[in-house]
Amino acid sequence: MPNAVIYHDTPIASAVAEATDDLTVVAAESDADVRDHLADADVFVTNPQNWTDDFLAFLSTGTWIQSTSIGYDAFPLEAFADRDVAFTNAETLHDTTVSEHAFALAFALSRRLGPLFDNQRRGDWDRRVGDEMWLWEGRRMTVFGLGNIGESVARRARAFGFEVYGVKRTPAIYSGVLPPDRVVATERFHDLLPETELLVLTVPLTDETHHAVDTSVFDALPDSAALINVARGPVVDQDALVDALETGEIRGAGLDVFEAEPLPEDSPLWGRDDTVVTPHVGGRSDDFATRFTRLFLDNYRRWRAGESLANRII
Amino acid sequence: MPNAVIYHDTPIASAVAEATDDLTVVAAESDADVRDHLADADVFVTNPQNWTDDFLAFLSTGTWIQSTSIGYDAFPLEAFADRDVAFTNAETLHDTTVSEHAFALAFALSRRLGPLFDNQRRGDWDRRVGDEMWLWEGRRMTVFGLGNIGESVARRARAFGFEVYGVKRTPAIYSGVLPPDRVVATERFHDLLPETELLVLTVPLTDETHHAVDTSVFDALPDSAALINVARGPVVDQDALVDALETGEIRGAGLDVFEAEPLPEDSPLWGRDDTVVTPHVGGRSDDFATRFTRLFLDNYRRWRAGESLANRII
Repeated sequence: MPNAVIYHDTPIASAVAEATDDLTVVAAESDADVRDHLADADVFVTNPQNWTDDFLAFLSTGTWIQSTSIGYDAFPLEAFADRDVAFTNAETLHDTTVSEHAFALAFALSRRLGPLFDNQRRGDWDRRVGDEMWLWEGRRMTVFGLGNIGESVARRARAFGFEVYGVKRTPAIYSGVLPPDRVVATERFHDLLPETELLVLTVPLTDETHHAVDTSVFDALPDSAALINVARGPVVDQDALVDALETGEIRGAGLDVFEAEPLPEDSPLWGRDDTVVTPHVGGRSDDFATRFTRLFLDNYRRWRAGESLANRII
Repeated sequence: MPNAVIYHDTPIASAVAEATDDLTVVAAESDADVRDHLADADVFVTNPQNWTDDFLAFLSTGTWIQSTSIGYDAFPLEAFADRDVAFTNAETLHDTTVSEHAFALAFALSRRLGPLFDNQRRGDWDRRVGDEMWLWEGRRMTVFGLGNIGESVARRARAFGFEVYGVKRTPAIYSGVLPPDRVVATERFHDLLPETELLVLTVPLTDETHHAVDTSVFDALPDSAALINVARGPVVDQDALVDALETGEIRGAGLDVFEAEPLPEDSPLWGRDDTVVTPHVGGRSDDFATRFTRLFLDNYRRWRAGESLANRII
């Protein structure tokens, strides 16, 4: 019977073990557990937070790695390819969850929920916070990255009356929810900024997108703009972001991802009234184990049958 | 030149004064100011929070009252009718703002923003809060009251993949964004509850809707349900709501309105981790003065020309 090692911070190991009778599941609880068992594993389930390149030395040729996440910048894909290791992600599991999280952040900013939560904790009925609220309807949203998540955000944004534009590496082959003339190539990203009041990042982290949102972007945005990042921290030059918030070049940020995670205790972002910080939880939901198990079982059936794997990256 | 008294807590008096050259505007700052000037006013602009029935004694026959709000349960409409006072509300100004606020509350609950803001204030990167999050997509939303705001909520909810139902006094004459078979009469409201996971209240407060959401409603809802109230506080039996939260009969509430406002300091709702309290600010936005002034000027032009007023209730 094949062996799986599952190293994750939600109870997916037990869910998978319960749902399979043709797989031996080891629930690893530490890096040491992984090192003890990985050599015997045919399947390794983990996520970018738990992965460390130390594991490479223990990884057998031909192992299949299933990530529970979407982003794969933390994984050494070339080393996987060299060892004939298959790598799949969980893209189709996350798009609606992350897009709901993106709107949670956008509305938390516009309805000033941070100051209101502070007031709630004090039992303070202060209606003046209402003077700082704004309406999103009618404003321009630019979605940077039109993969599954970007499309999911764009579709919802249109129903909210945003004027939605998108940025894509290859607009010529675009076929999504936006009118084609609202989708521009990455080189034209800056053209959209002077009218953009909500910039939503949903792009993978690559050499090309690293610090794609830098001082020049904050300079170009109007001071009524806000930034939502549910992609990857390093897409944003975080020091430039802090400066832009500090000087009022933009009016808020909703951030689920950061250049360093956990966000260091001394980061000025924690204390800002115009910034919502969430600890990289955009993909989380309480039925995650059930939904992941469904995705995994489908892929495991394919793997046993020698069929091609879904969401395969390498 | 006609006289207007404007009694409001946002700077609409100056905005209106600036935009008109055929109206003398008195900006009242207290009940006493209103009592001093109301007898001379042709137009009185106020809101339900600032209105008190003491003003009736100072109100001249034929005065026109423009409320900046939607709900008119706080105004003595019969007394207005007796005095030949015209009363208009600002319904068309609020529907998108209130519906954005309703989604802010719904996503604040599902993405557990309250606990996350507490963590943010402490600089605490705790990802375990993610285990308590849930996905709204695919769940049933029931919108109680399909006026402008209810329609506005329903349209947005459909883009988020909610299975949206509506409750209306007169479903036979419904022509909105929902399929007609998803709209039921008030008497059938309870039939929808066992499958409803988000109940959104957008109904006016009348004798019929007073405490329409009571113990029997919380009993019928599944324990995965949440309540959003952006209508009026007394539509909900607030003691029954506190009990339902306390016993886990529902899992959360997002409340902008309360049976007594300001919400009393000793209300158990302030301290609840599963409840978001906002101080009746659902209709607020920073361009409110501009948008209200536009609505007011149109109505003032009609009033001077002897035409029928927009949004006239009495």
